[in-house]
Amino acid sequence: MAKQSNLQLFLSKVSKVLKKNQILSEKEDHRKYLYSCIDVKKVISAVLKPKTKEEVQSIVSLANTYSISLYPISRGNNWGYGTKNPVKNNSVIVDLSLMNSILEFDNTLGYVRIEPGVTQQQLYDYLEKNNSEFQMDPTGSAPSTSVLANALERGFGIGVYNNHFESLSNLEIVMPDATLLQTGFGHYENSKTKEVYKYGVGPFMDGIFSQSNLGIVTSGTMHLAPKTQCVEMMALRLDSNEVLGDVIDVMQKLRIKGICKATVNVLYGKRVLTTKIRFPNLKSSHSRLSDSIYKHLLDEHDVGHWNIVTALYGTREEVSLAKKMISKSLKGVKGRLSFISERKLDFIYANRKLLSPILSLVSDIDIDSLYETLKRTFSIMGGKPSTASMRSPYFRSDKEFNEQDPNPAKDNCGLYWISPILPFRKEDVMKSFALGEKICKKYGFDFCPTYSMASGRCIDNTIPLIYNKDDKEETKRAAKCNEELILEHKKLGYVIYRSGISSMKYIVDKDDSFWKLKKKIKKALDPNSIIAPGRYE
Amino acid sequence: MAKQSNLQLFLSKVSKVLKKNQILSEKEDHRKYLYSCIDVKKVISAVLKPKTKEEVQSIVSLANTYSISLYPISRGNNWGYGTKNPVKNNSVIVDLSLMNSILEFDNTLGYVRIEPGVTQQQLYDYLEKNNSEFQMDPTGSAPSTSVLANALERGFGIGVYNNHFESLSNLEIVMPDATLLQTGFGHYENSKTKEVYKYGVGPFMDGIFSQSNLGIVTSGTMHLAPKTQCVEMMALRLDSNEVLGDVIDVMQKLRIKGICKATVNVLYGKRVLTTKIRFPNLKSSHSRLSDSIYKHLLDEHDVGHWNIVTALYGTREEVSLAKKMISKSLKGVKGRLSFISERKLDFIYANRKLLSPILSLVSDIDIDSLYETLKRTFSIMGGKPSTASMRSPYFRSDKEFNEQDPNPAKDNCGLYWISPILPFRKEDVMKSFALGEKICKKYGFDFCPTYSMASGRCIDNTIPLIYNKDDKEETKRAAKCNEELILEHKKLGYVIYRSGISSMKYIVDKDDSFWKLKKKIKKALDPNSIIAPGRYE
Repeated sequence: MAKQSNLQLFLSKVSKVLKKNQILSEKEDHRKYLYSCIDVKKVISAVLKPKTKEEVQSIVSLANTYSISLYPISRGNNWGYGTKNPVKNNSVIVDLSLMNSILEFDNTLGYVRIEPGVTQQQLYDYLEKNNSEFQMDPTGSAPSTSVLANALERGFGIGVYNNHFESLSNLEIVMPDATLLQTGFGHYENSKTKEVYKYGVGPFMDGIFSQSNLGIVTSGTMHLAPKTQCVEMMALRLDSNEVLGDVIDVMQKLRIKGICKATVNVLYGKRVLTTKIRFPNLKSSHSRLSDSIYKHLLDEHDVGHWNIVTALYGTREEVSLAKKMISKSLKGVKGRLSFISERKLDFIYANRKLLSPILSLVSDIDIDSLYETLKRTFSIMGGKPSTASMRSPYFRSDKEFNEQDPNPAKDNCGLYWISPILPFRKEDVMKSFALGEKICKKYGFDFCPTYSMASGRCIDNTIPLIYNKDDKEETKRAAKCNEELILEHKKLGYVIYRSGISSMKYIVDKDDSFWKLKKKIKKALDPNSIIAPGRYE
Repeated sequence: MAKQSNLQLFLSKVSKVLKKNQILSEKEDHRKYLYSCIDVKKVISAVLKPKTKEEVQSIVSLANTYSISLYPISRGNNWGYGTKNPVKNNSVIVDLSLMNSILEFDNTLGYVRIEPGVTQQQLYDYLEKNNSEFQMDPTGSAPSTSVLANALERGFGIGVYNNHFESLSNLEIVMPDATLLQTGFGHYENSKTKEVYKYGVGPFMDGIFSQSNLGIVTSGTMHLAPKTQCVEMMALRLDSNEVLGDVIDVMQKLRIKGICKATVNVLYGKRVLTTKIRFPNLKSSHSRLSDSIYKHLLDEHDVGHWNIVTALYGTREEVSLAKKMISKSLKGVKGRLSFISERKLDFIYANRKLLSPILSLVSDIDIDSLYETLKRTFSIMGGKPSTASMRSPYFRSDKEFNEQDPNPAKDNCGLYWISPILPFRKEDVMKSFALGEKICKKYGFDFCPTYSMASGRCIDNTIPLIYNKDDKEETKRAAKCNEELILEHKKLGYVIYRSGISSMKYIVDKDDSFWKLKKKIKKALDPNSIIAPGRYE
């Protein structure tokens, strides 16, 4: 009762700072903030949509006065990790989507300064319009997601600048005491280096604001990768797990030596299938493909058991040299290796009628569909976000897929992301694969991993656990499967790199010195615990 | 008086944990901890030399009980930034040099786990002995310096992995409350990824322990760069500042595109001279070379007005392609561009008699001395630390230079390092050069900058201010010159990236939100302020 009135007082004060349409206090308006792909049911108190950092400061200041829990979101499209839902019930959502300005762009030093509401699509369009010599690094998620929020969650992408937190710097943050902080060199008057050197002088603070709840980031600088004369795609298809093992060790050498400069994605056949088709019969008692159907579907859709893809960037000569070195390294590997440039692809497609007798000798693929898939891949490699992978969450759903603006949370698609890091070693990938397959089989789900070789030392393994969220029993099963996947990977030494709002309990241990440190800092900076309570704690 | 007895009590308790020879409580033993290249005169209370992290924990625990200020050093060879001297008088030095184990090495994933006492030379020797396929990234400082401490101070080197803090991960830290912390994934039992993925899950904490005083780091993991088939040197010599301007913009493109993968060092003629000769007449009233003598010395020692050097790493084909692209980019530039491999150098040297008529047509250089210089450069590029640059601090000293184990602090050489970061742009370098030259001229010193193109976006400008520390007046002048260099650069927006113990006041502003945050965290973690009080605060 006391809390209720605190909220009322808070909102009445907020209404003196924000306009009426920036405050959503009706239950009806909250619904779209509570959609979720994971199995949570949250209640929120209100939604505030500030337009400026000063408004954010006022909100934070008032939240302290009235002991209100705030939960900041940028675009809130954190599907499979909790979407817009707060960790703690009755939080007030601070929706930063109206703060979506691109504040600065430097086409020589290759950076852009953005607010949290800026989406991947918006940044891409902006760079195109401004004849950028640099490209953004898209994630596999939708064009409608926030660039800054992804970097703060330490997400990764497909290109050379695939570590988005490493590309981020010069954060402007509304602190829990409502003061404004600028990190790096940003807090020095007239600093000319705040956008180009991230560490500043004195302790490097940016890290404590990533995967955290110590402030509300209101802008940041992203470094961008230079566009190159040439982008070619390398594709390698393998038919057995045994061969994959050897290829992993080869790829490790190619990655650590910088011959493959961008993320190398190793997609399991099932993963690719989820982006192409729906589960054959949603109403059957099976929620997992049988081995024979899996094999049949691979054939039908011309998908490999293992599909390895990466982009080669550089001048024509650099790319040609990289291809030569890759081919040499993979010599003798039982698999189908190919390189293709967009130009070559367009040429083949333009001449598809002429070439069809030859093409049909090799495979009976649907050339139109293949062309479309490859064109989309080239777009992504060129820095253009795509909805291509967004079909996956619909694998066990009967909702229509909106290609233009997919929203799996609104469509109640069931999805958990489980993302353990693995050492870049054959034996670890094999061990983790066997574990994931075993657990998913036990719970009756398809195991659909991608192994993203994001550096030369480790692999970001992403596992989408896709389930029918309209089915209660299956939903419960999925939650248990998610838990087991996280905990059993952890037991083997493969901890997840990022957590959904319902999974934090699996990685946070209050007796562990690391989490004790986090708690101490939280207490010092946010004594009333008003910013995202429960998040990574 | 009370404090004195606290110290006595503290030391008596410490003597129950450390052996007698690990405790230096006599003034006589303190002298070598008080040598300095910058103008400070400190007093210390004692020196403790722990051998294990448990001993460090005991020391920290007792320091809390008796309110003792501890000042941890690794090898304490932070010449030009304060050497082994604490910021606060009467500190107890915690000398970590006996903690010098190399704990782990992985010759596939390319990392090494080390304690703070491990020196550059020691790591180099270890890697050689273990047939490492990876190389360390030496700094310009001596082989006797600590690898870990340099990384924690965010120092940089000459190779592809030039950002040493970025190569560092998985820190083990004795916290101010004497508990042990492990960052990244290190605090998870059986973690298999702690050495290969630095961010872990939850807030990334490593940064707050760099350039800081929030704990004592007792070990850390360094990622190493893969050795390559080929290492070639690119050298470009320019005779005018105007040409340099254009070259800077060309190099920016080459660096950001990754054609030049390693640090590109741009050395001013005077900087090179300090590594080759002494100031002509130390007893004269001049402490700065006249323009005509400078020019004469350049000729005499075959040094360019500007000397640009970088290493090209890769396979033979990669290096050959890089050379082609660099040559193309620099076409038309008025300067002398050359590439040389160690093999080619050895061949020329072996045939020097045969070639001497031709060589003498081009230049009247001393081929032996050139050979020696170049061989040393190749060593460094191959990951071998060298004393080559350590002659600089002796430029205005009459002490003998000990090539094997130079110690400019013990020799009372006068040296301040001033290290502003600059945007990677012609106009900023030119502006900063003019400023540095003006200030040094005003104070009667030689301005000897190096511009280290450590990334494609910024330049680490290092300025050694070398002075005769045996001359009181000159010493005073140098302190003023150091202050003005730091403050005037800051005014233009070029803040230093690292600070000496007497210069922290020029960068820390207690009313600035950044430094307030630092203070809050310090208070929360170290309420008694026992770890390195005054350091970056």
